[in-house]
Amino acid sequence: MSVTAAQGFRAAGVAAGLKASGAPDLALVVNDGPDHHGAAVFTSNRVEAAPVTWSRQVASDGRVDAVVLNSGGANACTGAQGFADTHTTAEKVADVLGVSAGDVVVCSTGLIGELLPMPSLLEGVERAAGALAVDGGLDAATAIKTTDTVPKLAQVERDGWTVGGMAKGAGMLAPSLATMLVVVTTDAVVPAGELDGILRAATAVTFDRIDSDGCQSTNDTVLLLASGASGVAVDPADLRTAVTEVCASLARQLIADAEGANHDIAIEVRTAASEADALEVARAIARNNLFKCAVFGNDPNWGRVLAAVGTTRAAFAPHELDVSINGIQVCRAGGVGEDRALVDLTPREVHVVVDLHAGDRAVTVWTNDLTHEYVHENSAYSS
Amino acid sequence: MSVTAAQGFRAAGVAAGLKASGAPDLALVVNDGPDHHGAAVFTSNRVEAAPVTWSRQVASDGRVDAVVLNSGGANACTGAQGFADTHTTAEKVADVLGVSAGDVVVCSTGLIGELLPMPSLLEGVERAAGALAVDGGLDAATAIKTTDTVPKLAQVERDGWTVGGMAKGAGMLAPSLATMLVVVTTDAVVPAGELDGILRAATAVTFDRIDSDGCQSTNDTVLLLASGASGVAVDPADLRTAVTEVCASLARQLIADAEGANHDIAIEVRTAASEADALEVARAIARNNLFKCAVFGNDPNWGRVLAAVGTTRAAFAPHELDVSINGIQVCRAGGVGEDRALVDLTPREVHVVVDLHAGDRAVTVWTNDLTHEYVHENSAYSS
Repeated sequence: MSVTAAQGFRAAGVAAGLKASGAPDLALVVNDGPDHHGAAVFTSNRVEAAPVTWSRQVASDGRVDAVVLNSGGANACTGAQGFADTHTTAEKVADVLGVSAGDVVVCSTGLIGELLPMPSLLEGVERAAGALAVDGGLDAATAIKTTDTVPKLAQVERDGWTVGGMAKGAGMLAPSLATMLVVVTTDAVVPAGELDGILRAATAVTFDRIDSDGCQSTNDTVLLLASGASGVAVDPADLRTAVTEVCASLARQLIADAEGANHDIAIEVRTAASEADALEVARAIARNNLFKCAVFGNDPNWGRVLAAVGTTRAAFAPHELDVSINGIQVCRAGGVGEDRALVDLTPREVHVVVDLHAGDRAVTVWTNDLTHEYVHENSAYSS
Repeated sequence: MSVTAAQGFRAAGVAAGLKASGAPDLALVVNDGPDHHGAAVFTSNRVEAAPVTWSRQVASDGRVDAVVLNSGGANACTGAQGFADTHTTAEKVADVLGVSAGDVVVCSTGLIGELLPMPSLLEGVERAAGALAVDGGLDAATAIKTTDTVPKLAQVERDGWTVGGMAKGAGMLAPSLATMLVVVTTDAVVPAGELDGILRAATAVTFDRIDSDGCQSTNDTVLLLASGASGVAVDPADLRTAVTEVCASLARQLIADAEGANHDIAIEVRTAASEADALEVARAIARNNLFKCAVFGNDPNWGRVLAAVGTTRAAFAPHELDVSINGIQVCRAGGVGEDRALVDLTPREVHVVVDLHAGDRAVTVWTNDLTHEYVHENSAYSS
């Protein structure tokens, strides 16, 4: 499972003492080749953490030999010392693995504005290197958890080749409490130049379409690594499909484990003039605190959906809008439809369908409700 | 006080039976002249309520004789019948007052997607007309409350002329639970053509700079009415200053009474390259749920401020950002500043200062924290 499902990868997860709890907090993923292709997508937040700045450079040449990930500290807003610490971490990984530091991606997640305890971290790197195993994927996925209650793993098998992955957090576009970190691996043989396009195509329709709480992290990173160890040359289109499946599974798991959420909400915007319109409308609904509170209260308050739609620039006429919630068309032609009392919001999964009647494009964005537990988790301690 | 502080205005507030609680829910404000100048600013939400559609037309010729306002129902997303009901309401007011329906502004607030109980409402209009009084301002302000715990009133006295006003809700740009409705009156003598510019200048730096929860209503309306009853001709610039003072007071009261809020947060963005940049940054912080939860938890989590700043397109360099919270510079040059433990977040009022070091423009936006009580109020019942 996880990042070691594909051949050619070893992984480990250890407790390096970065978390006060003593829980595992350092993961290492190594690509043993023969290929060492890597591609990455990072947060678009302009205030980016030191490991993001470092790893952008590492990934830019398309070669990645190893990834070291730590929870227990984001190493963001930590200035020159923070960047030096990331560099030192990569050098240490390079040293113990016998690779170049310039091929080591570094990912961090945790509190912003604190320096990492480097002696502990470097000692943890040594132990992680010693623990590397071809079945270490679960340990690695466990070590990158922050407020996640479960590790997130995914895997798809094809004819002779495999794609696997792990994730933590709650969303690329707009992660919750802390950062989203994702590592996807494959043993498919694929030209190095194809990897970046495959990863961007996959994230655009998966991680970019989940939005737990509208907030964006300084550390988000999604990596795709290819070892070629299966020996099976794969059509890039087939690999894109498989990588997208893995990313979709991980994205759905992130929403299902989002902080304090009681409902997972699929917002499907249909009959839009363009995909961009559909996305803008879906995201506006996904970020509307009043709507999200209503869902928490099992209240099918479609007026809040329309009020959110009305804030967008998408093509639509207000008197043509239709809204269904869990199969009941509560709003028809911009006005009252079926009785809202017919809507059952007790299941965890909620399906909202909005028809703009302006074209034939559709998009689904996943979000969560806004709950007491969300407020508690994000107010009760620094995170 | 309130809308009857200025000469030439009468007002009333009655219980028309629109609210199940039996609390006052219908207000009437009448301009007895000699001038009947009026200007209005409405929600920019494209899904606008029937009374907004109606009142846009009424205010467009610069003459307003009366305003009827109801709580207990937004009359939004109610189709042709909803618009007919607004029209009928204006006709009724016109009838009992002996004015033209085309000079009667209608404002509604409450649940979206429900038709108003018109017999009750029209009977209430009759009783409100009978109760009109030159000291009826407090009654009117009380009748437009929804989740407001107190009526909001303001007044400034100048040399022989007065500006007064009332408000309900939580913010023009982004009101909470329901709608923001504001009526400001003056007895100053001012050319009719000046009123619109004065109102827009005042709202731009007051109601447009409060943002309680990032949500935008379908019904927001701000009115400025001038009776000329003082007989004092006033320089438009002086009137603009006075109207801005009244609007600023009302805006501050809205934030202080926002749903479930424990803290009022002033976000001051300084040394920006432009006012637009400063506004974009301030609003991004004001809408960040993680930051708002942290303030609720008395946690000076400046990393969440920087993460919000980083989502904007404003001119700044991440390594130059400074952030102070309640006088303690917790972030200096994009990194760790003074000890965050020195910040005292126990007072209700919180002052966040962000320096972009990109110019000399500054803006302050007010918002609230995100609390358990906010979630409760917006999930426990349809609103």
